[in-house]
Amino acid sequence: MENIDRIADLCAAEIGTVLRDGGACPVELTECLLDRVQHHPDQHVFLTITRRRALDEAAAAKARLAAGSPASLLDGVPVAFKDVVDVAGTRTTAASALLAETPVKQQDSHCAARLSQGGMVTLGKLNMTEFAYSGLGCNPHFGTPRNPNDKTVHRSPGGSSSGSGVAVAAGLAPCAIGSDTGGSIRVPASFNGIVGYKASEGRIDKTGVFPLSRTLDTIGPLGRSVADCVHVAQLMRGENTVPLPARSVRGLRVLVPTNVVMDDAEEAVLANFEAAVARLADAGARVEREPFECLDRILEIGERHGSITAAEAYHEYHDIIESDLVGRLDRRVVRRILGGKQMSAHDLLTVQWMRAELMDRMHARLAGAVLAMPTTPIVAPEIAPLEADDELFMAVNSLVLRNTVLGNILNLCGLALPSGCDEKGLPTSILFSAPCGADDFLLAHGLEIERIIRA
Amino acid sequence: MENIDRIADLCAAEIGTVLRDGGACPVELTECLLDRVQHHPDQHVFLTITRRRALDEAAAAKARLAAGSPASLLDGVPVAFKDVVDVAGTRTTAASALLAETPVKQQDSHCAARLSQGGMVTLGKLNMTEFAYSGLGCNPHFGTPRNPNDKTVHRSPGGSSSGSGVAVAAGLAPCAIGSDTGGSIRVPASFNGIVGYKASEGRIDKTGVFPLSRTLDTIGPLGRSVADCVHVAQLMRGENTVPLPARSVRGLRVLVPTNVVMDDAEEAVLANFEAAVARLADAGARVEREPFECLDRILEIGERHGSITAAEAYHEYHDIIESDLVGRLDRRVVRRILGGKQMSAHDLLTVQWMRAELMDRMHARLAGAVLAMPTTPIVAPEIAPLEADDELFMAVNSLVLRNTVLGNILNLCGLALPSGCDEKGLPTSILFSAPCGADDFLLAHGLEIERIIRA
Repeated sequence: MENIDRIADLCAAEIGTVLRDGGACPVELTECLLDRVQHHPDQHVFLTITRRRALDEAAAAKARLAAGSPASLLDGVPVAFKDVVDVAGTRTTAASALLAETPVKQQDSHCAARLSQGGMVTLGKLNMTEFAYSGLGCNPHFGTPRNPNDKTVHRSPGGSSSGSGVAVAAGLAPCAIGSDTGGSIRVPASFNGIVGYKASEGRIDKTGVFPLSRTLDTIGPLGRSVADCVHVAQLMRGENTVPLPARSVRGLRVLVPTNVVMDDAEEAVLANFEAAVARLADAGARVEREPFECLDRILEIGERHGSITAAEAYHEYHDIIESDLVGRLDRRVVRRILGGKQMSAHDLLTVQWMRAELMDRMHARLAGAVLAMPTTPIVAPEIAPLEADDELFMAVNSLVLRNTVLGNILNLCGLALPSGCDEKGLPTSILFSAPCGADDFLLAHGLEIERIIRA
Repeated sequence: MENIDRIADLCAAEIGTVLRDGGACPVELTECLLDRVQHHPDQHVFLTITRRRALDEAAAAKARLAAGSPASLLDGVPVAFKDVVDVAGTRTTAASALLAETPVKQQDSHCAARLSQGGMVTLGKLNMTEFAYSGLGCNPHFGTPRNPNDKTVHRSPGGSSSGSGVAVAAGLAPCAIGSDTGGSIRVPASFNGIVGYKASEGRIDKTGVFPLSRTLDTIGPLGRSVADCVHVAQLMRGENTVPLPARSVRGLRVLVPTNVVMDDAEEAVLANFEAAVARLADAGARVEREPFECLDRILEIGERHGSITAAEAYHEYHDIIESDLVGRLDRRVVRRILGGKQMSAHDLLTVQWMRAELMDRMHARLAGAVLAMPTTPIVAPEIAPLEADDELFMAVNSLVLRNTVLGNILNLCGLALPSGCDEKGLPTSILFSAPCGADDFLLAHGLEIERIIRA
């Protein structure tokens, strides 16, 4: 059991290798993780545990591995899902009390089915911000998961994929699936000190995933390494898992915006960001610092005209919002959704057309380059003051999502990597982004960037 | 001159052949048409005549033809443009008094430049409904062109490409360019008894064309034959003009909706439609009559939530609409644009998402088939009653655009063909549509359908 505990803490890709080499049994590994979930001091991380399915899938993986015919490089590796993702036999609650009694899903979502086909073991469903709409992970219905990086103070787990971030950081699952509409994968990756990959919109099939904004929603993995994200994303796309060759950063243009993204950043966030960039420069990357006016423009137009997410969320859930049921939703989530009700068609066209125009321009400007910025300007904040003051909550939420949401609006793919810790040991994170569709470019460089930064 | 008059009345493709064969001189032909324009009893068809450019282009064509190196199959053939299309050295007024004093354009639009490169001779700019927003062609600023099919009563020329329809029908130009956002090419084709081709959105570059709805706007030719539309569209796309082989209708599925599209249709329109369909069936087409519920749904949702065109037109021109200048616009155009101001983001998303969903479904259902319906349920109505009663105007306008706008919302390509006349000699028309991108399929069958229907 000591051995299996050590293996359970490895990266998913490493676990896959150990399992294929016969160094561990997937059933034992699954039992070890289910045991950890069951005995974890914070019982707000998982919302549903799919014990039966996990053990059946682990047994099937064991048989395939014993026969020397693994389903993929991740055959037998456990995974857990944010509770927006349909998993047959469970409810999809989006962590809303309102949906807690909905019928169980008869079918896996596209991505859950693909991971199962690749042999991954489904541990269960993870807590999140209700309706996936906020970056701090607070949930009044199912509790707010604790950030495992601070054992004494209750700090934000990041959101909205709070359970996904915590499960990976706390050793409850080697990797987890989240969704990201404004930063909901990258922010929990940042606060928990793990890796988060936001795919380009359209790259991973969203069928069977609870929608917030059909236009901006993306799904993707949170894990302990870039390689894990590569493999899990490959499986989600229905591809064979194949090692992606790392690409050298020598000559890679790393564009660092001089405006907006550093504003109000904490000292440790800035220092660790600069240290990471300096390492990349030492390794031969061409770091270019320049203003990106379009980032100011995005935030300014969002301020004046509202957001695509608010408009689409209101459109999607107006039946609930306009009914008595609204009283059962988190008031802060309702407040954000109501922002979309205020928007006129003219407002929406303003943000839609700005998006189309700036996407084109940014994609041209970023060709062959990556954009670098702090993932979040701050480390995980304490929960208590946020719960006590809605205005503070809204302000901190905006700050936390400010950098990541730019990637959703511009449809960039993004990779959040740990860049170090502050003096309290709280993780900081650096975000690399590339144009829509340049995911393999980003991930291939990301493998090498990770090696350099974390060395 | 008698000979040149006869040639000027031919189809554009036929004129091209005569010119290449040395049967006429393009300069003489151009002079003949400029003369007709100048002496035409209705001086509300052209807004600008580009005499100098026309004669220069004709002379250049003459030289190429004499050298045996024509620029295209339409080298030396005259064409005129709806006044939404930028032509260097002219104003683009969109037939608005407000824009009559704007600076002249320094550059051709993409499509005007392409036609010039193909050797076509630019005669000038054509009248239209102000801002291209209505199907009846009424224009309080520049006058409403007369429908040449009725010499006694002032009847609607169709709109919004009113001048384009009349120029071709009255013999002032063998072909003309129009734009179509809700039927603005196909309705004037119907009322004037000529051929109109609405391309799939995205097929012909709109750069340099005054926008009404960026999403739904399309540009395309009005002409005297399907072959003319084929060649002009090829040139607009920057392709070589090559004869498109006609495709037999034998076995072609011709889908006729049993709902909506026949409602309130005049007797002659229905009789001529049925006669055309019967001829196609005789020629081996498989005529299938079935309900298309989605057509009801489109109209119902439009009624309840508004239109993409109204929202985008308001978005595009809100500065004018919200200023004192609004008083200088046609009140009926303002009324339609203001429909877009009332729309919420939720309304707009309702129509946008319905469109996306129904496009997918209809494109699957129409694979390998064409949709057939009357282009307009009525023949060209008298102008006087419409000018006297805005409510009647709005009702008739909606009726006239009802069938064609379905093609814009579903992003179908469409071909309006003359189907005969009513007892007064007023033209009726039949509209064939195919999925976005199936333009060549539609046109190739259209060549044969035209031969069968008009025989």
